[in-house]
Amino acid sequence: MIDLRSDTLTRPTPAMRRAIAEAEVGDDVWGEDPTVRALEEETADLLGKEAALYVPSGHMANQLGLYVSTRSGDEVWAHEHHHLIGDEQGATAVLARALPRLYSDGIFPTDELLESWIAGRGDVHRAEPALVWLENTFTGRVVPLAEQARVTGFAHRHGLRAHLDGARLWNAAAFLGTAPSAVADGFDTVSVCFSKGLGAPVGSALAGDADTVARARRGRKLLGAGMRQAGVIAAGALYALRHHRERMAEDHERAAVLAARITELSGLPALAQTNMVLVRTPAGEARRYAEAFSRHGVTGLGSGASIRLVVHLEITDRDVEDAARRIAEAVEEL
Amino acid sequence: MIDLRSDTLTRPTPAMRRAIAEAEVGDDVWGEDPTVRALEEETADLLGKEAALYVPSGHMANQLGLYVSTRSGDEVWAHEHHHLIGDEQGATAVLARALPRLYSDGIFPTDELLESWIAGRGDVHRAEPALVWLENTFTGRVVPLAEQARVTGFAHRHGLRAHLDGARLWNAAAFLGTAPSAVADGFDTVSVCFSKGLGAPVGSALAGDADTVARARRGRKLLGAGMRQAGVIAAGALYALRHHRERMAEDHERAAVLAARITELSGLPALAQTNMVLVRTPAGEARRYAEAFSRHGVTGLGSGASIRLVVHLEITDRDVEDAARRIAEAVEEL
Amino acid sequence: MIDLRSDTLTRPTPAMRRAIAEAEVGDDVWGEDPTVRALEEETADLLGKEAALYVPSGHMANQLGLYVSTRSGDEVWAHEHHHLIGDEQGATAVLARALPRLYSDGIFPTDELLESWIAGRGDVHRAEPALVWLENTFTGRVVPLAEQARVTGFAHRHGLRAHLDGARLWNAAAFLGTAPSAVADGFDTVSVCFSKGLGAPVGSALAGDADTVARARRGRKLLGAGMRQAGVIAAGALYALRHHRERMAEDHERAAVLAARITELSGLPALAQTNMVLVRTPAGEARRYAEAFSRHGVTGLGSGASIRLVVHLEITDRDVEDAARRIAEAVEEL
Amino acid sequence: MIDLRSDTLTRPTPAMRRAIAEAEVGDDVWGEDPTVRALEEETADLLGKEAALYVPSGHMANQLGLYVSTRSGDEVWAHEHHHLIGDEQGATAVLARALPRLYSDGIFPTDELLESWIAGRGDVHRAEPALVWLENTFTGRVVPLAEQARVTGFAHRHGLRAHLDGARLWNAAAFLGTAPSAVADGFDTVSVCFSKGLGAPVGSALAGDADTVARARRGRKLLGAGMRQAGVIAAGALYALRHHRERMAEDHERAAVLAARITELSGLPALAQTNMVLVRTPAGEARRYAEAFSRHGVTGLGSGASIRLVVHLEITDRDVEDAARRIAEAVEEL
Repeated sequence: MIDLRSDTLTRPTPAMRRAIAEAEVGDDVWGEDPTVRALEEETADLLGKEAALYVPSGHMANQLGLYVSTRSGDEVWAHEHHHLIGDEQGATAVLARALPRLYSDGIFPTDELLESWIAGRGDVHRAEPALVWLENTFTGRVVPLAEQARVTGFAHRHGLRAHLDGARLWNAAAFLGTAPSAVADGFDTVSVCFSKGLGAPVGSALAGDADTVARARRGRKLLGAGMRQAGVIAAGALYALRHHRERMAEDHERAAVLAARITELSGLPALAQTNMVLVRTPAGEARRYAEAFSRHGVTGLGSGASIRLVVHLEITDRDVEDAARRIAEAVEEL
Repeated sequence: MIDLRSDTLTRPTPAMRRAIAEAEVGDDVWGEDPTVRALEEETADLLGKEAALYVPSGHMANQLGLYVSTRSGDEVWAHEHHHLIGDEQGATAVLARALPRLYSDGIFPTDELLESWIAGRGDVHRAEPALVWLENTFTGRVVPLAEQARVTGFAHRHGLRAHLDGARLWNAAAFLGTAPSAVADGFDTVSVCFSKGLGAPVGSALAGDADTVARARRGRKLLGAGMRQAGVIAAGALYALRHHRERMAEDHERAAVLAARITELSGLPALAQTNMVLVRTPAGEARRYAEAFSRHGVTGLGSGASIRLVVHLEITDRDVEDAARRIAEAVEEL
Repeated sequence: MIDLRSDTLTRPTPAMRRAIAEAEVGDDVWGEDPTVRALEEETADLLGKEAALYVPSGHMANQLGLYVSTRSGDEVWAHEHHHLIGDEQGATAVLARALPRLYSDGIFPTDELLESWIAGRGDVHRAEPALVWLENTFTGRVVPLAEQARVTGFAHRHGLRAHLDGARLWNAAAFLGTAPSAVADGFDTVSVCFSKGLGAPVGSALAGDADTVARARRGRKLLGAGMRQAGVIAAGALYALRHHRERMAEDHERAAVLAARITELSGLPALAQTNMVLVRTPAGEARRYAEAFSRHGVTGLGSGASIRLVVHLEITDRDVEDAARRIAEAVEEL
Repeated sequence: MIDLRSDTLTRPTPAMRRAIAEAEVGDDVWGEDPTVRALEEETADLLGKEAALYVPSGHMANQLGLYVSTRSGDEVWAHEHHHLIGDEQGATAVLARALPRLYSDGIFPTDELLESWIAGRGDVHRAEPALVWLENTFTGRVVPLAEQARVTGFAHRHGLRAHLDGARLWNAAAFLGTAPSAVADGFDTVSVCFSKGLGAPVGSALAGDADTVARARRGRKLLGAGMRQAGVIAAGALYALRHHRERMAEDHERAAVLAARITELSGLPALAQTNMVLVRTPAGEARRYAEAFSRHGVTGLGSGASIRLVVHLEITDRDVEDAARRIAEAVEEL
């Protein structure tokens, strides 16, 4: 089975397992785990922020980013398909008690939209805007840094804060050939994941200024995510951060090859975006196609009119070629 | 000044003031106010529900409707312009902690949309859908009862509940020439207002089955809206319910005349919908036009490309004619 | 029936009803009700604060006081019998999401307690203290102003805020023969009721500095307690504030007489505290005694070993004498 | 340094590190991690429950136990020193939005207390009681199983649920010489920790019936504690569960010896309770004494008039003897 459902599926490599087994640890609830500290410091440095906090998931890194930048009843501006809206249950309402205000076109808000939304501010009927949210990459697409700067600039001019869901920020940086800190630039808080393209077993981080991260650290404890000898898993994340960032460009190349070969062999339009391939199917047929792919040994996530295939650490050149062939066989059979 | 900003602006009539002054009262926190009880019973009867609860505002009636039909983190399906989304601050997130899922076209959701939204149910990434929300009238427009029945039917087939924001349900019933209970039919909870077209000074109600209303009654107390000798204001609402429902058709007629006369005299396109008139202005000019109207003695609410004028209890035939003339003068001056 | 269950039971007097009937009103959601504004200004003046906000109940005034001075997860220090802990459902947890830290002895916290509670501050396991709560009168007892000053001084030295539940602050001021502002002195927020000893049908207020009250005003709207022509009920509150404060000393005198006569006639120990009389019964017998009183035409609230009788606006000297006699008859019968 | 601050401080043994390095893993967010599944099943079996859920901390296991058994605004009955009240920040108010009702004497509530608390049920002023909370061991003391049964019996007779904070349930079972399931008996939900006496680096579990655990699983995701290849840390917990339960009796024996030797050598009263020793100091001197102990190479937690010393996996017979001697030296010096 060539499993392309997500880049979260990767299992630790032998070298990573060794790093985990030999991790120096302490009680991180009391700030005594040296591996966690090292991970947090290196992450903050890479992102050009003062501090970072290790957490169990990107979902939690996002929700803490929301929690520290809003008060109950504040408004967060986001895209309706941002992870925080549609993929974190109702956490946005339950934890921070923030009310989303949503757009649905494009991958960033236009100036016109931002201006119209800020206009009603202060009206007693409306929630008070507090935070602008971006995601990069977003469904595999890279948000241009100039657009990010425009949006964060708007936010700060109006006293709002800005958060970047950077679950795949490493992919954006690799794709743009820039430093991670350039992608994180201008944001008050940034979340990143170690367990997606980087291949660590567990964990994400929230980065920002020291005060904000201190508040998030209290928030992490409030959620019950203070972990004791967390260095065991942080060691995997640290290994990934040190050794797997460079290789992400390979995933992007393989994704490009995969998309090209799928179209060539099966006739289905396929588009590569960083490490993701979107295969277009007839409207409403994505699930049926995905099931057919699966019967031929390739798994992806289908909904509506497209199937998402994600290239990751465990996928080789050979897997790419095999996957394209099996998909072609599946399509023939349909 | 002819004030057409809203039908919430009406002041009590002399007869209503007499009813208020002579109200028989008791401590309603202990269930001992006969006027409140009479109001709740008559409201429930008119809406064809088992029970009703008197509350200070339509906002609270809505939020209690949300509170009793959801658990923290559940999803409520609504239009992005429903009152509960854009006009009740962040209460939806703060009180019920519900996550909105929104559509933006039309005045009710299509079957296709409902089906696509129910499809992802049970996924651990998604909030659990619990409640479908409708509003009637919605920005003055009447939602057809057949569409309501289709949506509530869908909700109940899938184990969801359905709420009607009936702040202007009395207008819908008057416009359709049907009983209020026909408009409320099929909904688990319905909110109605006494302080809009009906002209009472304060108050709204939430109606539903006895158990649901009992829970809402506890919720009202939790919010701190248990009032002592509330019969004082309930008397105004009761008077309005008994004497002002019939006359709402007059508001609708006047709105139709007002729209026609505005277009005739000023050339601006104007559309009457129940008791509201929407005057179309050049894009982005609504505020400037509304200010000009105001300088000529007619106030309305302008945003984007339209100005909302609302006809109510205090507006006479003569006011209608005067308002149209003044608007024409204002336009000439622009 | 002589109803001494509570001072919330009073019905408006004829003069108050006239004030209500003739109230000048406007839409208070838009800040256009002159009677509400007058009430808020006079209340603020009497309490020596910059601003005040009219709300439907003391419960809401308290909860808004909590809401504006805490962030989710903060700690509020209170007595276990303060109204906000045991008489406002779970609102403290639901609205402000504050965690109570409670003492159970006395009617104010000692320095030793305050010092021990502040000592653990900053520990990641503990909620962050934000607010110290007092109530005056508290179960009828007057908290000495020097003790209040000591507690609010402590709070401010440590960066905490202080709230006074002054539901019966008017009684405390009348009892002490001092201005209401002296009782409110030193507190960031103060709640007062118009519907208890003052005898208005509906309403309470929260007072504080202008910024705090502005935030509370938004909070009131969030709860759905923005009311339209609220001047109708505010007129009753304003009348009470202007005409019924002076007469509260009469209630205190009658309470003293009532306590003395009960002990004299029935042999039951009875203690007067401002407008309340606590009648002591054999342990666990309070409910049974209260039922006996009720059969003889006097109602009060019994629990544990005492029955609370509250003297109010509708109680005359003759009622006091009659009540003491009926109680004696009831005791004889037991 | 002999570190006796807590049993959370233990670092993984070499054998446990091997189990971690070789763990078979998958994506646990999608239910595909075999090690996590094995851990959850073995835990549920040991506790005599249908299912269990692996979570990052005992704090989270407790908070999810609270979340699944209450609705916003419900009341939880607990001791003021239970972990959920004083050691989980304000999570009780923020996540479940539950209002605590607290007793402060003893280690379990008496029948008299329970009866008095249930008596006021249904009053609109009071929160609705939903859950009774116990902790075993509680500050090292074992709550007798007969008392547990009495309390859970009361809860179920009145339609409340019962939760056991079993962070040190393994100690209770070892101390009583009974099966863990006997200690968990009668509770709807039970939390246990792998990272305290058992010595695993990270994690706890919540056990209960299948439906309840399924809801907690959704709640864990909502909090952002769904972890990807969590088998890495679950392997440590599973190893601890299989190999370290038996040896807990050794900790209890060493604690008994430690208490006896401290008293013998230093003259300070010391009491052993399961794996904890409480050393009594002059009132208010505990911190100063603890600092002196620390200067002599023994760390514990001091507050008020006692210092807590916890015996754990890394403490040998020799450490016990050394610790007692160093404490005696410290006391001499004071």
